[in-house]
Amino acid sequence: MMEVRLARHYGFCFGVKRAIQIAQNSKNASTIGPLIHNNEEIKRLNSDFNVKTLHSIDELNDTKKAIIRTHGIPKGDLKYLKKKGVDIIDATCPFVTKPQQICEQMSDEGYDIVIFGDKNHPEVKGVASYSQTKAYVVLSVEDVKDLKFSSKIAVVSQTTRKIEEFLQITNYLVTHYKEVRVFNTICNATFDNQNAAKQLAQNSDIMIVIGGKNSSNTKQLHSICEEFCKDSFLIESEKEIKNEWFKNKKRCGVTAGASTPDWIIQKVIGKINKI
Amino acid sequence: MMEVRLARHYGFCFGVKRAIQIAQNSKNASTIGPLIHNNEEIKRLNSDFNVKTLHSIDELNDTKKAIIRTHGIPKGDLKYLKKKGVDIIDATCPFVTKPQQICEQMSDEGYDIVIFGDKNHPEVKGVASYSQTKAYVVLSVEDVKDLKFSSKIAVVSQTTRKIEEFLQITNYLVTHYKEVRVFNTICNATFDNQNAAKQLAQNSDIMIVIGGKNSSNTKQLHSICEEFCKDSFLIESEKEIKNEWFKNKKRCGVTAGASTPDWIIQKVIGKINKI
Repeated sequence: MMEVRLARHYGFCFGVKRAIQIAQNSKNASTIGPLIHNNEEIKRLNSDFNVKTLHSIDELNDTKKAIIRTHGIPKGDLKYLKKKGVDIIDATCPFVTKPQQICEQMSDEGYDIVIFGDKNHPEVKGVASYSQTKAYVVLSVEDVKDLKFSSKIAVVSQTTRKIEEFLQITNYLVTHYKEVRVFNTICNATFDNQNAAKQLAQNSDIMIVIGGKNSSNTKQLHSICEEFCKDSFLIESEKEIKNEWFKNKKRCGVTAGASTPDWIIQKVIGKINKI
Repeated sequence: MMEVRLARHYGFCFGVKRAIQIAQNSKNASTIGPLIHNNEEIKRLNSDFNVKTLHSIDELNDTKKAIIRTHGIPKGDLKYLKKKGVDIIDATCPFVTKPQQICEQMSDEGYDIVIFGDKNHPEVKGVASYSQTKAYVVLSVEDVKDLKFSSKIAVVSQTTRKIEEFLQITNYLVTHYKEVRVFNTICNATFDNQNAAKQLAQNSDIMIVIGGKNSSNTKQLHSICEEFCKDSFLIESEKEIKNEWFKNKKRCGVTAGASTPDWIIQKVIGKINKI
């Protein structure tokens, strides 16, 4: 009989819960880009509340109410929506609004802006757009080494990154530049889920990580689990589970990204229990 | 025959050279505390230029010209000298003036001030005195763990500290607080001497470190040499050299702190060459 245990912290964070609440209260509205990085939950919001998902502001057409996704949107897009007279319902996670404000203010004060994150992630694109000067988006010390900054640098992080990697970047900058203003914008919920996943993975034979494959924090969780438990699998729903994964396994750990709703987690656990 | 090699960088830094020049141009003046941390050089300035050393401002008496030492002095003492109408000749190292200004400005802007350094060192006492609020002086992560800060922290370093230890402190703060404004006030000359000492120590059987036993940067040099060459000795002058140290040694490395004059270094090398 296999033992299935959930991580001490997992799933929905404050910002995602808040955004879903907002969306449920905004029937017939459209989100600009997916509200959260979870396809299943977005389908549910569409079928139950008629909340549609536009890929970009180019698809606005006659949209009257636009919901801003948890990751935020670029400053220019927001301006465009306002100009179009669209009703704006802001579901940007307050922990994402923060680095946006920091970028705006620090670039205004003459700081070079460094963002630790993935330049293709919508959150990072949004945050970078608030810098009045070019913001440098980096993922590793290698990325920073090639850059030349002025003596004043402000650093923020994508909310879902690992603190250890953030510190590698800031350590390089502190060693080489006179003033480095470090804003730790990594979200606590991310920390909590990561620590709990690490603990559970160390005591599991197999780890199931549930979340969107486009979700940064889910991917981080999966990479942490893999470090401590080589049989770690990232799935979006119970349909992807394969019986063979569980052969000769005794202890199965389950965790979920910040945008994974409980109803999906329950379905996954239900299916594992039947194996 | 023993091979004696000097480190690629050693001895006098910019601030010390400048202070000695200033003192030589200020015959009959008195320094408030030792001008630099090197007793031999201070004796020379006294005998050749009649520059006296007062232990504190309480010994002013009828002093007309006061030289401010390389390490700076507390803000209150400076104010007192001005009130007394004493001619002030400022030999504070510009790299020490910098953290003083940072402390003043940052505490004014509501930052909690953290100084990485030795609370009993005159430079640190001076720098701390410029904070309008209590400045926290710490030497290790253990020291910081017990403290509670507001969300905004500004960090400076005593100029002569090791960058690796500074980063340990800033990493702890960045992990636990929202905004950490890191000013890397560690002096390049200190870096250069430390790197050169490390390199030389790795290729020596015995290391002689020349400098004041009250000199922070000399003590750091000695501790770095000890890491890479167990027979490392800290001396203030050639008189302390013991022949037995050199038994069975082939390669002798020599380095000197930022306040050690060349004439002392030459005497030391002369004596070693005679062994």
